[in-house]
Amino acid sequence: MDWETLAKELTVVNDAKVILLVLDGLGDLPQDDKTALEAAHTPHLDQLAAESSCGLTDPIFMGITPGSGPSHLALFGYNPTKYILGRGILEALGTGVEVGQDDLVARGNFASLENGLIVDRRAGRIPTSQNEVLCQKLNAALEKRDKVSISAYPGKEHRFVVKFSGQGLSDALTDADPQKERKPVVFPHPLSPKAEASAAMVREFMEEATAILSDSAPANTVLLRGFSKSPTIPTLNELYKIKPAAAAQYPMYKGLASIVGMTILHPGETTEDLFATVEAEYASYDFFYVHVKKTDAAGEDGNFEQKVQAIEEVDPYIPRLIDLKPEVLVVTSDHSTPCPLKSHSWHPNPFVLHSRASLPDMVAHFSERECSRGYFGRFQAVYAMPLMLAHAGKLKKFGA
Amino acid sequence: MDWETLAKELTVVNDAKVILLVLDGLGDLPQDDKTALEAAHTPHLDQLAAESSCGLTDPIFMGITPGSGPSHLALFGYNPTKYILGRGILEALGTGVEVGQDDLVARGNFASLENGLIVDRRAGRIPTSQNEVLCQKLNAALEKRDKVSISAYPGKEHRFVVKFSGQGLSDALTDADPQKERKPVVFPHPLSPKAEASAAMVREFMEEATAILSDSAPANTVLLRGFSKSPTIPTLNELYKIKPAAAAQYPMYKGLASIVGMTILHPGETTEDLFATVEAEYASYDFFYVHVKKTDAAGEDGNFEQKVQAIEEVDPYIPRLIDLKPEVLVVTSDHSTPCPLKSHSWHPNPFVLHSRASLPDMVAHFSERECSRGYFGRFQAVYAMPLMLAHAGKLKKFGA
Repeated sequence: MDWETLAKELTVVNDAKVILLVLDGLGDLPQDDKTALEAAHTPHLDQLAAESSCGLTDPIFMGITPGSGPSHLALFGYNPTKYILGRGILEALGTGVEVGQDDLVARGNFASLENGLIVDRRAGRIPTSQNEVLCQKLNAALEKRDKVSISAYPGKEHRFVVKFSGQGLSDALTDADPQKERKPVVFPHPLSPKAEASAAMVREFMEEATAILSDSAPANTVLLRGFSKSPTIPTLNELYKIKPAAAAQYPMYKGLASIVGMTILHPGETTEDLFATVEAEYASYDFFYVHVKKTDAAGEDGNFEQKVQAIEEVDPYIPRLIDLKPEVLVVTSDHSTPCPLKSHSWHPNPFVLHSRASLPDMVAHFSERECSRGYFGRFQAVYAMPLMLAHAGKLKKFGA
Repeated sequence: MDWETLAKELTVVNDAKVILLVLDGLGDLPQDDKTALEAAHTPHLDQLAAESSCGLTDPIFMGITPGSGPSHLALFGYNPTKYILGRGILEALGTGVEVGQDDLVARGNFASLENGLIVDRRAGRIPTSQNEVLCQKLNAALEKRDKVSISAYPGKEHRFVVKFSGQGLSDALTDADPQKERKPVVFPHPLSPKAEASAAMVREFMEEATAILSDSAPANTVLLRGFSKSPTIPTLNELYKIKPAAAAQYPMYKGLASIVGMTILHPGETTEDLFATVEAEYASYDFFYVHVKKTDAAGEDGNFEQKVQAIEEVDPYIPRLIDLKPEVLVVTSDHSTPCPLKSHSWHPNPFVLHSRASLPDMVAHFSERECSRGYFGRFQAVYAMPLMLAHAGKLKKFGA
């Protein structure tokens, strides 16, 4: 019996509230012998660690570097190798496109076509402002279609997202991208008979888009890849009987939260806005996913000082969360983004769980190394949800 | 999705090199409060531990004592309960017999037959020299056969290996061994219809061997068990895109390495030979499995001093491995062989991983107890390979 089956059977509704605070990309490697978390002045996180149980989580399993999709699914209690989020879906979520159950989405590139050959797959990296104009142009011209409605959404530079809305669309399509330059245009091939109509429809769109863009060189055609539909995934409420809300400021994380059925709150841009939103909406939900992006951004930039600062900026809000008297407060990360690597990594994440039913361990500071000596040990992130629900009294006994 | 599937998808080729140094049977229990590793003077292993991430590995899972086959498969990243190496195969590998894809092998005993009953299953433990003569006698007389060629290879005392080479042979055969003395001869039974011809062929061989040995009492018949063929197992290159080589001095470990597709290097007998071979061949491969046998042999003998000495003999070579500048150096064991138990055991193995992407933890000495406080915690050995590949930059991100 797997966790999902067990969860449906064992979860109960109660008044307890859970706050899951995710400091994106928090885990790091030492610079001058200290990680950003070790170097940061974090009296409140340290006090929290001292009063709580700590550990280290592997997002997927040891050695695997996760994208934001699988690492968040794991934190929400989903087997991250069972529910695969397509590339197109993730790009759409990151671009702020809402994807319904019937929609088919793909990542698009504006590209340059000459004499039937793709001569630049990125159309000279056109500026984002021009991308916006091109998407408007496409949307205006394409709006006449029936059966399937098509919309293009601008991303950065040459990147955009295309959404096909209609009935019976299939994502079993190969990429419509020659991958290399000086190759002819490629149309999607159906990977199953059910996808034949979708392949033909996409081809028709690509030909029409190329006609519409004929005077927009160097951005005079489109490449599409990562065709995907919204995954069929049980909601958090279906699995755990909770009423979850997401306080997140970036489209990708709002999108991930909406996929698992969270209500999306819309805090303003500042860290104060983020936590104030949790306080304002506290009465209405029993599970809060709170997402801080700055820690990851600093890691991606390899900016140690900025990462320290991002951590220190969050620390004063810990007492405000505690003041809300949640039954469970967890502070952790979705994955590590070490400054020396400037990218997501496989390194585990510090994890602290505060509740009345916690055993305080010998961890006195909230850091990678201290948490490695914690009561929870090192564990896979998919166990975070059972732990949170258990400490919140939302999990009945299994067996008699 | 399992690790193999993920590995095929995520591994990439790069220039980074990995050295996996296995000190066979290293883990131990204390004698006068210290394990052999704690008692040994190991300044270089200790320095390595201080600069690296450490942990403890369970070869299969907690409590399971592994043979050399499954414990090595786990270290190489294979699910050790999925790929089962037959007893015959392991005996053949240990005896230095090369086993091809079509070959069927079994463990043999020379035994004593009187009036149709097996009166001694070990033929009075005849000396190895006599065993060698008997195998020569069998091979000379048996060489006339067509279709299936049969060879006997002497082991120690009464033990030998028989290899049947031909087409369509099956290992779905019961043991041809009455297990107890004063019982009649037993021939193999087919466990599936496909094995009927093989059962008949083996019976014919046993009858012929008994005829050939009629004047060799007490070794005047043969018992056979553990019929097995080479397992179908994806190679390390197929799974991880690496080019692996094995520096091992004993047939069993060369055999295990060849099963997973490593190139077998042939160092001389000394510890110096072993490490010099790695240095000499360093340019030609990107993954080195280096196997030290003496630690295990000392454990099997219950010889604490000898085990300390075996460990101290390896320690000075650590700087030479570091000097090669591998991206990843791991020192660990396949299983524990505690001196007090004089056998393999279920106790976990100290594990140290040195790389530029390692988080040095608070482990200052390379030992069982210190490693239990390491950053990696306690983990199953099958995760050693994802960790090595990740630290070597050979694993792409999973999902977006």
